[in-house]
Amino acid sequence: MPTTPMPDISIPQARRIVVDTTGAQIVQEESPATRDSRGIYLPHYIEPVSHIAIDIGGSLAKVVYFTRSNQPLSTTPPQSGHSSPFLPPSESVFIPPLASNGASSSSSRHQHESPSINPHSHAPFDHSPPQRRPTLNGALTPGVLLDDHENQNPPSPTYTSSANKNKSRHQHSTSFSSSRGNFSKYRRDSVGVPAPPLPGGLLNFARFETENIEDLIQFLNDLIKTSASANRVSLEKMQKNVKVMATGGGAHMYYDRLKKELNVQVTREEEMECLILGLGFITRVPQEVFWFSEELVYKVSHPDSTTTAKISTESQQQQENVKLTIPPSELPRPSPTPPAYQVTFADTLDGTESVPHFPCLIVNIGSGVSIVKVDEDGSFERVSGTSLGGGTLWGLLSLLTDAENFDEMLLLSEQGDNSAVDMLVGDIYGSDYSKIGLKSSTIASSFGKVFRKGPNSKDRKKSFKQEDIARSLLYAISNNIGHVAYMNAAKYGLDKVFFGGCFIRGHAATISTLSYAIRFWSKGTMRACFLRHEGFLGAIGAWIKNVEPEPEQQHENGNGNGNGKTEE
Amino acid sequence: MPTTPMPDISIPQARRIVVDTTGAQIVQEESPATRDSRGIYLPHYIEPVSHIAIDIGGSLAKVVYFTRSNQPLSTTPPQSGHSSPFLPPSESVFIPPLASNGASSSSSRHQHESPSINPHSHAPFDHSPPQRRPTLNGALTPGVLLDDHENQNPPSPTYTSSANKNKSRHQHSTSFSSSRGNFSKYRRDSVGVPAPPLPGGLLNFARFETENIEDLIQFLNDLIKTSASANRVSLEKMQKNVKVMATGGGAHMYYDRLKKELNVQVTREEEMECLILGLGFITRVPQEVFWFSEELVYKVSHPDSTTTAKISTESQQQQENVKLTIPPSELPRPSPTPPAYQVTFADTLDGTESVPHFPCLIVNIGSGVSIVKVDEDGSFERVSGTSLGGGTLWGLLSLLTDAENFDEMLLLSEQGDNSAVDMLVGDIYGSDYSKIGLKSSTIASSFGKVFRKGPNSKDRKKSFKQEDIARSLLYAISNNIGHVAYMNAAKYGLDKVFFGGCFIRGHAATISTLSYAIRFWSKGTMRACFLRHEGFLGAIGAWIKNVEPEPEQQHENGNGNGNGKTEE
Repeated sequence: MPTTPMPDISIPQARRIVVDTTGAQIVQEESPATRDSRGIYLPHYIEPVSHIAIDIGGSLAKVVYFTRSNQPLSTTPPQSGHSSPFLPPSESVFIPPLASNGASSSSSRHQHESPSINPHSHAPFDHSPPQRRPTLNGALTPGVLLDDHENQNPPSPTYTSSANKNKSRHQHSTSFSSSRGNFSKYRRDSVGVPAPPLPGGLLNFARFETENIEDLIQFLNDLIKTSASANRVSLEKMQKNVKVMATGGGAHMYYDRLKKELNVQVTREEEMECLILGLGFITRVPQEVFWFSEELVYKVSHPDSTTTAKISTESQQQQENVKLTIPPSELPRPSPTPPAYQVTFADTLDGTESVPHFPCLIVNIGSGVSIVKVDEDGSFERVSGTSLGGGTLWGLLSLLTDAENFDEMLLLSEQGDNSAVDMLVGDIYGSDYSKIGLKSSTIASSFGKVFRKGPNSKDRKKSFKQEDIARSLLYAISNNIGHVAYMNAAKYGLDKVFFGGCFIRGHAATISTLSYAIRFWSKGTMRACFLRHEGFLGAIGAWIKNVEPEPEQQHENGNGNGNGKTEE
Repeated sequence: MPTTPMPDISIPQARRIVVDTTGAQIVQEESPATRDSRGIYLPHYIEPVSHIAIDIGGSLAKVVYFTRSNQPLSTTPPQSGHSSPFLPPSESVFIPPLASNGASSSSSRHQHESPSINPHSHAPFDHSPPQRRPTLNGALTPGVLLDDHENQNPPSPTYTSSANKNKSRHQHSTSFSSSRGNFSKYRRDSVGVPAPPLPGGLLNFARFETENIEDLIQFLNDLIKTSASANRVSLEKMQKNVKVMATGGGAHMYYDRLKKELNVQVTREEEMECLILGLGFITRVPQEVFWFSEELVYKVSHPDSTTTAKISTESQQQQENVKLTIPPSELPRPSPTPPAYQVTFADTLDGTESVPHFPCLIVNIGSGVSIVKVDEDGSFERVSGTSLGGGTLWGLLSLLTDAENFDEMLLLSEQGDNSAVDMLVGDIYGSDYSKIGLKSSTIASSFGKVFRKGPNSKDRKKSFKQEDIARSLLYAISNNIGHVAYMNAAKYGLDKVFFGGCFIRGHAATISTLSYAIRFWSKGTMRACFLRHEGFLGAIGAWIKNVEPEPEQQHENGNGNGNGKTEE
């Protein structure tokens, strides 16, 4: 098909999501900077053709790609209440990867080491290329290239729909074992020799500044080149089996450049559609979705209080130890208190395709904010937005503080006291304005105290601490987004609001502010939900969008490779 | 009654507005700085007891008070289509006031001189006291003190409800003439002698910074003192006949101080109630309410376009000359184009009490923003608000520019180009994102370009012009307010949104932005309306709130003075 401008795509129906998320695990967090870029290990998935998805936004370009990995990964234990999906079937053995110095470590079961040698859990803007080892670990390994280096009957990759997997885990295990049997035999034969890749691998996430798109292109070229070596094929052959899916605004602006400089197929995918697909997919990954309980929200906004809720609560048992010490007037409670942390991975026992989290509102906070309504069947509409987003806060704080990047700004805000710059209800009224439900601590005017101090602007600038300024503006932007989000959720009768985009970054004060705004305005009837990979929804959606479903009858015999979609 | 905290006042029913607005005229604008503080001449009103209303907000304290004045005032001709209400009945003559040097000018009809010697159309923060002349012009002149210096039968002040006035203008003129007959005789007797005041006078408006409340107190003390001299009574007697009504947050915080330092009765009035009362009252004054047509909005936001709409259009004839040159895609037009400027003073021909502008949404933009829903009968509820208000813009620009006050900031913004700091849809997508209705010129992220420029913050600060920063933030705050206002209007099924508060100040770009936001989001079904005395709604409401209705049967015989309400 000829290259055309962005086609006018009709609203899609629900898709069968064909990437197998059974046993998916989020790898251990390396550092706060990589908090939302942790890889997701998908033990049962293999790509026929390597797909690299790029979501190029106004400020950041987000990248998602899948690499082979046979190392056990440290991970937080799943909380779903099911038997741990990570326990491998009894016949398989995981061989730990080679250390970078070439020595191997002994095999063992259930290793939970930090994947520190996994080069693909990138810190933001970490442009170091993947390690150049002739190993398939961490490399793009499209299934079609497996033939080239397998000296056994090639294992048959199995592609099944997630829904079927969820329904029939035990059957799957059986079929999995049978296909993995080949691998097991292979692995037992040779220790110290690079193992062929297991089915399954790591979904990787990386971020670059859109302004420095050349860094992104360089990174991808290195990845492709390294993968060619690891697969022992020529660069041209590798490039033929790699596809780039580009979404976001930059998909249009950088399309020609990506094609030219990567020398691979590039398709453009519609941004909103990818956002929704990504949301529907990622919410199936255990521990991906979370929200703050009232206690947590209260504790974060009242650090001196005596609430004993732990920010890092991870299990339901711990939840029972939380004392409810919030005064009733602080947070309205029309419904039982949700736990501080809850996994929401839910099997669809009746075998329907419905995504557990639809219908919902998704609020994507990037440079600006898009607000999209998602119906139960996955159809969606961008209903609203606001220009007061991450870019606004970023821009303001870059002029008003010495912080050099967004994470520094968030750090500053953690130490700030917004009441030094904000005008509170109490400052105006001297007390509560209870007649209309405003407490004296409510912010009446963000930054409202700044103008008054000092006879001239020079004096004024010195009067205020950067930390206070940062906190005030973070609250101002977050509260406003929460407010607009609430109004749209109310308009469409939705009680669940997802927040995506690179703005939040797991920052407790931001999550707390958004949660409180939703709760306050809705009088407790709505819930704000967050995602660990919040910034990558569009990229994930673009990634999975191009995976073709495998016809069901091929499920058992394992024949055939699915083909990725050709260029539109 | 003992001093109590703000009582919990139940929502009032519609009140009969007893200040006679017939013939009300807004005096000529002295300067842009006094644009929204122009006095209102009420030819048929006299106060029994002088009421001074103060609305003390977070940043500004607004004052309204009524002074006697017998000078004809320059004013724009009324456009109501009725015979001019300003034409005095044939028997009366207006005597121009003494010039400050004591000389008198010849009497004449319909003088339209600028009231430059009227000391009570204050520029903001102009603290000069009223001129100290033994004349009643410009002084508080409560009716009860008239006895002291009238050597005729005292005229009988008439108090009638506005509704009756509207219905029976001709009858009123008759009764007015009869009561004014006394004055006419008096005036003809003596030229060059200070004339006793006519019924009627000037509603004055003044503003002070809340931070400098002592200036306000000083001003009022001077006014009272001067009025005592003019009325030839002792200060104590004057103080006994002056009442202060305080509203706004500061009514609580400064109550004791006002009582102590002014030595007059002080009552506290509930803020929201005063806002609504003030709105209902002021919208009866001709030329008070206005809105921008689409052409005007377009022209203001596209200064290079060829639209011929005039910003200063004041009559319907001029409107016919406006060519409609806006492309249909720019502004949706489900309804006929309203004129650029329209007086909305409407008689209630059926004699009901309904205020022509209710139901509506009133958005009061001060330091922060309050959003109040008003039902047809005048009952109201504060339904929403936002902390991103005038104080926010003021505070941010005080740190980011050299502007020393809000008017300077608005001037800066007029010369700015926001696309230098804002990230537009076109910057992200390279073109329109028409699939979701966003034009390339739409702001995707306010201030979104600021972070990208320059390797460090010092460089960044120098990269941006203050004018561009000012315009960007003005748009950001205004657009957001318009958006939140729209959502609330839509929620409650209202199609009219009034904007009040000291934020707008008749500034064309702000009015245009708010108008466009309302129009854009509502697809043209709603209208944004503005008020010339937008900042004084609360003060006006507090002022009129305490005027007791005169029993109807006393209307004709003119006996008795109504009493102001005693302290609660």
